[in-house]
Amino acid sequence: MTHARSAGRTPNQLRSMSLVTGYTRYAEGSVLIKAGETHVLCNASVLDKVPPFLKGKGQGWVTAEYGMLPRSTHTRSDREAARGKQSGRTQEIQRLIGRSLRAVFDLEALGERTLHLDCDVIQADGGTRCASITGAWVAAALAVHTLMREEVLTQNPIRDHVAAVSVGLVQGKPVLDLDYNEDSNCDADMNVVMTGSGHFVEVQGTAEGAVFGRTALNGLLDMATAGIAELVKHQRQALDLATE
Amino acid sequence: MTHARSAGRTPNQLRSMSLVTGYTRYAEGSVLIKAGETHVLCNASVLDKVPPFLKGKGQGWVTAEYGMLPRSTHTRSDREAARGKQSGRTQEIQRLIGRSLRAVFDLEALGERTLHLDCDVIQADGGTRCASITGAWVAAALAVHTLMREEVLTQNPIRDHVAAVSVGLVQGKPVLDLDYNEDSNCDADMNVVMTGSGHFVEVQGTAEGAVFGRTALNGLLDMATAGIAELVKHQRQALDLATE
Amino acid sequence: MTHARSAGRTPNQLRSMSLVTGYTRYAEGSVLIKAGETHVLCNASVLDKVPPFLKGKGQGWVTAEYGMLPRSTHTRSDREAARGKQSGRTQEIQRLIGRSLRAVFDLEALGERTLHLDCDVIQADGGTRCASITGAWVAAALAVHTLMREEVLTQNPIRDHVAAVSVGLVQGKPVLDLDYNEDSNCDADMNVVMTGSGHFVEVQGTAEGAVFGRTALNGLLDMATAGIAELVKHQRQALDLATE
Amino acid sequence: MTHARSAGRTPNQLRSMSLVTGYTRYAEGSVLIKAGETHVLCNASVLDKVPPFLKGKGQGWVTAEYGMLPRSTHTRSDREAARGKQSGRTQEIQRLIGRSLRAVFDLEALGERTLHLDCDVIQADGGTRCASITGAWVAAALAVHTLMREEVLTQNPIRDHVAAVSVGLVQGKPVLDLDYNEDSNCDADMNVVMTGSGHFVEVQGTAEGAVFGRTALNGLLDMATAGIAELVKHQRQALDLATE
Amino acid sequence: MTHARSAGRTPNQLRSMSLVTGYTRYAEGSVLIKAGETHVLCNASVLDKVPPFLKGKGQGWVTAEYGMLPRSTHTRSDREAARGKQSGRTQEIQRLIGRSLRAVFDLEALGERTLHLDCDVIQADGGTRCASITGAWVAAALAVHTLMREEVLTQNPIRDHVAAVSVGLVQGKPVLDLDYNEDSNCDADMNVVMTGSGHFVEVQGTAEGAVFGRTALNGLLDMATAGIAELVKHQRQALDLATE
Amino acid sequence: MTHARSAGRTPNQLRSMSLVTGYTRYAEGSVLIKAGETHVLCNASVLDKVPPFLKGKGQGWVTAEYGMLPRSTHTRSDREAARGKQSGRTQEIQRLIGRSLRAVFDLEALGERTLHLDCDVIQADGGTRCASITGAWVAAALAVHTLMREEVLTQNPIRDHVAAVSVGLVQGKPVLDLDYNEDSNCDADMNVVMTGSGHFVEVQGTAEGAVFGRTALNGLLDMATAGIAELVKHQRQALDLATE
Repeated sequence: MTHARSAGRTPNQLRSMSLVTGYTRYAEGSVLIKAGETHVLCNASVLDKVPPFLKGKGQGWVTAEYGMLPRSTHTRSDREAARGKQSGRTQEIQRLIGRSLRAVFDLEALGERTLHLDCDVIQADGGTRCASITGAWVAAALAVHTLMREEVLTQNPIRDHVAAVSVGLVQGKPVLDLDYNEDSNCDADMNVVMTGSGHFVEVQGTAEGAVFGRTALNGLLDMATAGIAELVKHQRQALDLATE
Repeated sequence: MTHARSAGRTPNQLRSMSLVTGYTRYAEGSVLIKAGETHVLCNASVLDKVPPFLKGKGQGWVTAEYGMLPRSTHTRSDREAARGKQSGRTQEIQRLIGRSLRAVFDLEALGERTLHLDCDVIQADGGTRCASITGAWVAAALAVHTLMREEVLTQNPIRDHVAAVSVGLVQGKPVLDLDYNEDSNCDADMNVVMTGSGHFVEVQGTAEGAVFGRTALNGLLDMATAGIAELVKHQRQALDLATE
Repeated sequence: MTHARSAGRTPNQLRSMSLVTGYTRYAEGSVLIKAGETHVLCNASVLDKVPPFLKGKGQGWVTAEYGMLPRSTHTRSDREAARGKQSGRTQEIQRLIGRSLRAVFDLEALGERTLHLDCDVIQADGGTRCASITGAWVAAALAVHTLMREEVLTQNPIRDHVAAVSVGLVQGKPVLDLDYNEDSNCDADMNVVMTGSGHFVEVQGTAEGAVFGRTALNGLLDMATAGIAELVKHQRQALDLATE
Repeated sequence: MTHARSAGRTPNQLRSMSLVTGYTRYAEGSVLIKAGETHVLCNASVLDKVPPFLKGKGQGWVTAEYGMLPRSTHTRSDREAARGKQSGRTQEIQRLIGRSLRAVFDLEALGERTLHLDCDVIQADGGTRCASITGAWVAAALAVHTLMREEVLTQNPIRDHVAAVSVGLVQGKPVLDLDYNEDSNCDADMNVVMTGSGHFVEVQGTAEGAVFGRTALNGLLDMATAGIAELVKHQRQALDLATE
Repeated sequence: MTHARSAGRTPNQLRSMSLVTGYTRYAEGSVLIKAGETHVLCNASVLDKVPPFLKGKGQGWVTAEYGMLPRSTHTRSDREAARGKQSGRTQEIQRLIGRSLRAVFDLEALGERTLHLDCDVIQADGGTRCASITGAWVAAALAVHTLMREEVLTQNPIRDHVAAVSVGLVQGKPVLDLDYNEDSNCDADMNVVMTGSGHFVEVQGTAEGAVFGRTALNGLLDMATAGIAELVKHQRQALDLATE
Repeated sequence: MTHARSAGRTPNQLRSMSLVTGYTRYAEGSVLIKAGETHVLCNASVLDKVPPFLKGKGQGWVTAEYGMLPRSTHTRSDREAARGKQSGRTQEIQRLIGRSLRAVFDLEALGERTLHLDCDVIQADGGTRCASITGAWVAAALAVHTLMREEVLTQNPIRDHVAAVSVGLVQGKPVLDLDYNEDSNCDADMNVVMTGSGHFVEVQGTAEGAVFGRTALNGLLDMATAGIAELVKHQRQALDLATE
């Protein structure tokens, strides 16, 4: 028996994708990304300071923070601010978002400022870290667009798109862009971050229930590559619409 | 010279109010409340447990947590989860929301369960604690509606509406429902929490720039009473629409 | 049946009040305030620095911290230093004390220094936040007296007295200056902070067991106004005795 | 030139000692100990529980916590509750107080309950840990007296007195019961904890400015032994007065 | 110009490897793994309890903690216990070690107990997370050997070997088992965790300086596969020697 | 019946002692000290900074941190970094190590730099704090030797040896250098820190099970004095070998 995907998706089909730009009004760049029932608010703030280790080095920094609203999930989770610390999972994800964005930034062209990306999950149905990366890139691009329009920057520090998608083995078959239900039941799970030009930024594959061989890995990477090309198109359209 | 309010509001006029029910899909009750440019997501979760001090007492509990997304404000604030603790202001506000809701709940009729309200500020333009209370009541009422429809509850534990509004003295004159700009420049500021039947639940007045006399206090209370009556109408409409 | 107050107090009678100045020897101002069985040690320290947000602004700051000794209460409470954080209640109270004192201070006349008030509850029988405010004002005034005698200050930065008292509805009747037993059993409870000239600084009313109407509110405010006038007389006498 | 002690004390003279029993009203045992200008409030609480490692073992526990009010000292120190942790010094002292008291307790005779001693320094002029031990013993004895009078205990679990004093080498000469000024300037410093029968419980000697030989050590121990005998007399008198 | 490796290593050559079993005497399994100048002490403890979420489920758990001694590195790092929290990097690594070990464990065969792996870096020259995994497997196997010898377990819960190695692109060329110097200067870096049967458990590739294409990724995976086969031989030899 | 010591030790015999210098390669001074089955890694780091209170005072600082690996002990202890704080015991020990080392340092001759000693217990069989002090002195001496060889220092800031040993009363008889088993069962326990010239730096005696008299104390001090003279010989030999 084969796995039937919800909403009748084929194995290599992304969830319906929507990028609502200008979702909040004070951030320099703001996007609500909806990948199916996963909704993440990505806000980009431009700060006129850099972390201590970069002071006076003539370059900027791009960093990210991630959080889930307590009732974004099926059952309520503890609020991290109330517990007094961020979980290991949260820290792992926000480090990944920051690294992914920095891979396509020319930090010298950014100048001595920080682009701070806040990715807050409003509703979670799997794939929140990938949606955060894909949405954060759009928020970052909007903030950069503002800086260039205001002539704070004269050169665009963004060298390429960056987007992310999950792939996984469900009942031995590869599927693209897993929802929560698929993610909880897959054998292996991989998050792939790639640029607009099709190069890898991060590949993080984990055997959840069963270890996997080289052939399966290749199939997953093919599927992710195609999915990311599509996500990049969505990013381009959203950005064009917002800045035309 | 008198104070001109933004959007041409008269002194005793509320900001435009919108209550989007069912904003997220997993919470038992979910409302996005928009009071002008202040947007707060209020989610109500029903938990099958009570705090230790109530175990075996045959009654339930209503409590709240509050947070601001880092870039809900004009300039980015630190993320409380990353700093590792909630500020005094945050704790003060979430205690106020919890007390206000409990004032209209029959905790015995709720049974041994907790109604946990999460109020997360998506965008902040003043009055976030009042909007949280007004919105949390609707989220709570939606959650209770679900419990009654599923016959988990046979008696409605909510005895009355509760809603909140700010009033303040700006250039010596009373105004209703202050936005951030007014709040930052007022002489005195009062948050009033009242029931649908017009009784007080909380009155918190603070001299910000100038102490105030009994007459001014009376004027502010009159204005708040009228404003809350209007907010209660909004609550009733939203609830009727969502549950008809 | 009407409520009989302990020590035969009438409804509008304050508890016996004593202000022991110079209680400790190192603080610039030190007072042990005893309101019946509630005893709070208020120490004022003069620090030659201001918080970061005031650096170079040519003005000073007044702030407060509050704590309860673990066995000030009927049953032992956890030590906040051992638990590693101050409770929401503690933070709420110390913010209130600080705001109340600042309302009567000319911060520019204070110069670039901080008046730091430590209010530590030695014994608690209700009304500790109000006693802290009333006592802290005397400690602050003693510290300012020292600074003026030493000609560090040439102008008195204190513009008026500030004092606080609780009022509440017990069995539907208003009473002044509630002790712990009354506080635990009242319907509504209000802390009022006023100046020597009879203006409001803070009004914080909370429905504990039953919501309350406008008439009841007015009765409570009348009673508080009279009580505070008496507390201000106690402050004046204590200060005169200590500085004559 | 020899060291002149303040208040004309001879080298082997204790500071004036006062033990105010019943200083607070809710603790099962309460003592304000004044050793010169060092004032420590010692409260003993009887708790009907034992730490996890003793559950069901048929014995009790004696433990202590220590704190300094922020302005007990010449210059204000940070409040440990606000900083969010107890310093190493605080922990070291409270562990010492607990061990010292346990050395004279028959924990089985105490039954499955905890005697919790809170030692809070109201004013500090050196020797606060020794004053805490000497005062805590009296507070503990008062609490035990109450338990025996109420026939909760039928056998006295306290086997002996315990008291503590500091000795030190100032300008090469031994002195007893150092005040803050002497403590800051001594070559070596020793805290000695002894029982009423003259046995050692703790000996903690530290070279502050200069290491010391065996002869000096012997002189310090002689002086401490005599001092503690005197402190034990003070304890006995205070206890007799309070319980006669 | 090509990259010359230290100690004359060829690009596909592992560092000299040594596995000192029984390095400490109290742990159920103990190994000091030395991969060149990277030395990690791996201790396996058998605990007769499981985490709360597994209570009564009839299965065990395998988990890991990781730490670096402050001066394991070229310059001293802060001690995490003193700073009061584990860094994001530390948490990321210990989660990876735990997941990798669990991938080859039959948790039901382990019974209701926890195998807790402590990986402490004594000396760090790159590749500490990979050495931790490779060493932790040996420590775990030794602990399991003890449990089987003592007949606590009758069936071996370990289904396969697991080992890890880093590969990276240095000056565009793939190299195996990077030392600190290579790691700091590489373009891309991948940690690969595989079983003895050549299946993937984790693949974590990160573009450090330059994004990378599919061909480069394939080259790195080939090299890692060969390296891990060699590591598994080292594990087998060490285990045979220790348990014969 | 008299106490039989493990490994046939006589009451006044030290455990077998080994000092492995250069145990790790990056620290300026590194020693693994083995006192029987107690193994402590002592690393000395030279840092070009001083704590804030010494800035610009023309002198250096010597400080220490202490930790136990979680499975250094018979049963696994919690990792302090994971729990988020150092225990009172850990802080007490690291303060003792720092004070002991400073007692023999000329801090002005050290110049404006910090010698930071990390003492990490690899395996614990009692006496870890004493072994840490004895080992830390050797690590410090090695670091100073390096600084002098490199002509960073022209004058040796170390004025004397410092070493430490435990003594205790087991079944009423004094024994030297207690192992874990003896330590757990002794009546009294004393840690003595002395210089090479036989002067006291610290004396910390604690009645564990039974209080002790002056004669017993004298016997313990005699035994410690002889033991430390022997430890100093071990230090001298190790240092001579490492620096010849």
